[in-house]
Amino acid sequence: MIKNYLMTPGPTPIPEDILLSMAKPIIHHRTKDFKNMFAETISLSKKVFQTTNDIVLFSSSGTGAMEASVSNILDAKDSAIFINAGKFGERWGQIIKAFDANPIEIKYEYGDYAKPDDIKKELDKNPNIKAVFMQASETSTGVYHPIDEIGKMIKENYPEVIFVVDGITAIGAIDVKTDDFGIDIMITGSQKALMLPPGLSLLSVSEKAKKTIKNNKNRRYYFDILGELNADAGHFTPAITIIEGLNLSLKRILNEGLENVFKRHALLALSVQEAAKAINLELFAKRPANSLTAIKSPNNINSGDIINLMKSYGVSVSNGQGSMKGKIIRIAHLGYFDKPDMLMTISALEMALKKLDANSNFSGGIKKAMEILS
Amino acid sequence: MIKNYLMTPGPTPIPEDILLSMAKPIIHHRTKDFKNMFAETISLSKKVFQTTNDIVLFSSSGTGAMEASVSNILDAKDSAIFINAGKFGERWGQIIKAFDANPIEIKYEYGDYAKPDDIKKELDKNPNIKAVFMQASETSTGVYHPIDEIGKMIKENYPEVIFVVDGITAIGAIDVKTDDFGIDIMITGSQKALMLPPGLSLLSVSEKAKKTIKNNKNRRYYFDILGELNADAGHFTPAITIIEGLNLSLKRILNEGLENVFKRHALLALSVQEAAKAINLELFAKRPANSLTAIKSPNNINSGDIINLMKSYGVSVSNGQGSMKGKIIRIAHLGYFDKPDMLMTISALEMALKKLDANSNFSGGIKKAMEILS
Repeated sequence: MIKNYLMTPGPTPIPEDILLSMAKPIIHHRTKDFKNMFAETISLSKKVFQTTNDIVLFSSSGTGAMEASVSNILDAKDSAIFINAGKFGERWGQIIKAFDANPIEIKYEYGDYAKPDDIKKELDKNPNIKAVFMQASETSTGVYHPIDEIGKMIKENYPEVIFVVDGITAIGAIDVKTDDFGIDIMITGSQKALMLPPGLSLLSVSEKAKKTIKNNKNRRYYFDILGELNADAGHFTPAITIIEGLNLSLKRILNEGLENVFKRHALLALSVQEAAKAINLELFAKRPANSLTAIKSPNNINSGDIINLMKSYGVSVSNGQGSMKGKIIRIAHLGYFDKPDMLMTISALEMALKKLDANSNFSGGIKKAMEILS
Repeated sequence: MIKNYLMTPGPTPIPEDILLSMAKPIIHHRTKDFKNMFAETISLSKKVFQTTNDIVLFSSSGTGAMEASVSNILDAKDSAIFINAGKFGERWGQIIKAFDANPIEIKYEYGDYAKPDDIKKELDKNPNIKAVFMQASETSTGVYHPIDEIGKMIKENYPEVIFVVDGITAIGAIDVKTDDFGIDIMITGSQKALMLPPGLSLLSVSEKAKKTIKNNKNRRYYFDILGELNADAGHFTPAITIIEGLNLSLKRILNEGLENVFKRHALLALSVQEAAKAINLELFAKRPANSLTAIKSPNNINSGDIINLMKSYGVSVSNGQGSMKGKIIRIAHLGYFDKPDMLMTISALEMALKKLDANSNFSGGIKKAMEILS
């Protein structure tokens, strides 16, 4: 008998009460009951986003909300900076190009993080830049970018520039303060720290961004932000069941307390990071996120071999993506995760490394983790 | 105690086994298990679409797949015909415009259906027309358009024209033969006859359409048909749970047998249509679909009053949309519906009409329905 432990950075495990609540008979979305629940859900999500801005929901993966932020903010030929420090940063460039705007890339080696000064230089060079697009945490590398400093720098020096942040593996896991950080558009998806199935994305939009959107004529229909804001509980048939799950998951997060949720994520992240170091492994991220930990595979071992061995104990972690494939493993701790999840994962990692003769300090990792978590 | 009976044309009731299957712990989409299930699901969906063409899935409402068919087929300034015979026909025009193409409207009074000759005239007038966009059944009026005749006319006379059909309330309910009818792109959504929650759309694409798409540079990213076809089980994180539900629902449909499914829908539709006539009500659709029945409200009674009274017995049916609001009621029989559903709905309708002194032939409708269904 092997149980399945999903330790991947999306999809992440879904609490049992939420799974069962989504198994209730479906209700119609043009009813008072649904509209009330929808309005409550939006209001709860603002608390988790730490914003007073409007929030819209799209029935799509997180990439849909990324596209919405591009096609609603940028007109054809508009210039925008995007930070490419991983697969999801790269995606910004693809979307900006697809909508005939002009992407200005600031590229970092994978594992590295964005520096405010690099962005400032580019903004000074080109006064026509309309927006900056970046990730909060780059899911492909485990990096957390200093979006607080970058937001402050933009707000103080370039008040016209729209700051767009993909917080898909940050919202609900890391203390990202949408309004305090000066983020005009903040994005997340359902299948990460919100502990839901994939299929729903959320996007907050500032008044400043709304003004820009009103004057923007780029081609869009399904991902029309103002159309969605003006609709009564969904312009098109919304993902009813996932929204019902979202209502519950937001209540779970707020009942635990935002601060406690962030502390829990920080503690779990620390246990994995320190355990890795204790068994002579290197972290891949120069500035690790609290939502997932990317670890370099040691001694030229293909990380796929480690992952397969861990899987033989039932523990699923993720490989690297693109050029990072085979070189790193990524362990999630965003969403519905607790201390035993980390203990079990670290132990499975150590057992895999032993089988591969990785010359790690066997049992040093789990010892360290137990110290941190007790 | 009042139970809830959802008799609306989307969302529709979800079978209990499918609801529970979607409440299982989530699995990762980049695994062999998921990929195998995904491939099987695509292959099953081809049978239900009656096509050998490729099928792609989008995590979106049906409107997302409608947008995909426009942004992938039409370049800016391309001309295309769309049939406007209701709210969803109108939507084609909005999407074509949003993607900077040139919509040529063929408009019918609501309740009326499209005539092949009208389309032929327009195609003869303008040899540059690249595509024809229409509904199979127009959900807002209950009309079933003669897509078989229209498809034949296009195939025989204008072999270059791409024929796009929104089958959102047809696939799995009405015998629409995608390939035989010459339909290049056929679209459906999850929350109709496929008996699933909203959040997933399906789109079949012919080789002819693929050639057009390859040469088309309109702006798109999330709804990129070829990108989705080339991806291994979803370009972006797919709506994993709904796809698992889809696998089950397609098996349910194919186990019942496509022909039996269509016969069941035809019989249920007939019972509602004939019951309505037996109590002196008029059908709104000049060519009624087997997926839903739209009935005119009698004697200047606001249809909302009928709907509210039916709701007091727990039976939810739909009002008209836009200019049809207050004038019609729409009763669904697409998907997870059987004879008792119809009996109960017709009875609730009769009880509501009696309370409103509608001078209907009280109990004549249910009598007729019982005759037809026994």
